[in-house]
Amino acid sequence: MTRTTPTTPAYRRLSVEERRGQLLEAALQLFAHRAPEEVSLDDVAEAAGVSRPLVYRYFPGGKQQLYEAALRSAAEELTLCFAEAQTGPLTLRLTRALDRYLAFVDGHDAGFSALLQGGSVVETSRTTATVDGIRRAAAEQILVHLAVERPGPRLRMMVRTWITAVEAASLIWLDEGKQPPVAELRDWLVDHFIALLTATAATDPQTAAAARAALALEAAEGPAGVLARRVIPVVETAAHLL
Amino acid sequence: MTRTTPTTPAYRRLSVEERRGQLLEAALQLFAHRAPEEVSLDDVAEAAGVSRPLVYRYFPGGKQQLYEAALRSAAEELTLCFAEAQTGPLTLRLTRALDRYLAFVDGHDAGFSALLQGGSVVETSRTTATVDGIRRAAAEQILVHLAVERPGPRLRMMVRTWITAVEAASLIWLDEGKQPPVAELRDWLVDHFIALLTATAATDPQTAAAARAALALEAAEGPAGVLARRVIPVVETAAHLL
Repeated sequence: MTRTTPTTPAYRRLSVEERRGQLLEAALQLFAHRAPEEVSLDDVAEAAGVSRPLVYRYFPGGKQQLYEAALRSAAEELTLCFAEAQTGPLTLRLTRALDRYLAFVDGHDAGFSALLQGGSVVETSRTTATVDGIRRAAAEQILVHLAVERPGPRLRMMVRTWITAVEAASLIWLDEGKQPPVAELRDWLVDHFIALLTATAATDPQTAAAARAALALEAAEGPAGVLARRVIPVVETAAHLL
Repeated sequence: MTRTTPTTPAYRRLSVEERRGQLLEAALQLFAHRAPEEVSLDDVAEAAGVSRPLVYRYFPGGKQQLYEAALRSAAEELTLCFAEAQTGPLTLRLTRALDRYLAFVDGHDAGFSALLQGGSVVETSRTTATVDGIRRAAAEQILVHLAVERPGPRLRMMVRTWITAVEAASLIWLDEGKQPPVAELRDWLVDHFIALLTATAATDPQTAAAARAALALEAAEGPAGVLARRVIPVVETAAHLL
């Protein structure tokens, strides 16, 4: 028979890595749902169930160091959102990646807004570089899916601009109390991508080739087909332009 | 006969407002072409031909105060870029506004990048609010030109997203040594607007009404007509979607 009573949790000494991970997890949770200004080291210590000096032992740089570590961890998670097999229609791949990205935004709402809106006390050239790294990784992934070997400046600008649009729309979505429903936002962002790809194809031969190849893989019942059929009634009033 | 020699400029005491304006102008010039980190109060004093203590008398908050004053002044100038008569095709109004905006970006290159890329030492909630004020003013102007009385959330999100895309494209343009030529960038941003308006019209009745009204004013030889004729060869390979 054991003498430990069920109300006393078994005490186990955590390894350095485990303790670090536990503190980071507590910090991530706090920074996800509050502006960094509203998170103190005491909050992190309390959430992890440890003393403030212990937090300092693992993160001598205090809140700034914890914030940057949490941000790097979130950046890794976010970068994984874009990983997607190179099969099937492009719009379905984008839809799946956006579902993961928007779930991340939903789960890190206050932290996401604070990070991207700028002017935060914890913002440094390092945090800016981490965010830029995420954008670059996302752009690279999309170029891989567009199956373009040496993307020229116009195609790269198009992809990077769309990524900024996704960020901006996510911030507006958070700001408006997560309206419209996330699936509507996602579909609109996919439509935005198709529209921008098509408009850029009008003046850039490389984008035109990528757009034709992508459209060939689309299904009539998929996002590109639905968009095409819905756009026709809007543009057919503008027959004088042709 | 006057005793003043031509090499000694006539000394005239500047009024408080004139002196303030002169210092601000010097600061604006410096902050336009260098990152704020690379501008010192001594630089401002030297550029204005005054002593450092005099700069402090007018701007006791030092560099931060000068930067914020310069930013507000630049914000006023930038906001004027969007003022445009409500006549003629929408794409021509956009073209003219973008020409002014991109000339501003060209003339304030380093300062524009430093301000928008974040992580700067002079970035505060006040500078962020000033930049957001510019974005809001630009969005309001575009909604005025779309002649929509009570713009709904989708149309507002579309306009705000496009404004972010313009900013992002401007930063990329500066980053790539002001390539492509500014007229190409401007035309692409107009195409982007038409594409986004059309794609958003596909799912939002209010945007559809605004898009139809805007397209009705477009000329065949204008940007919308050129884009429409160029897009056809790209999308006609996707007839299976209709």
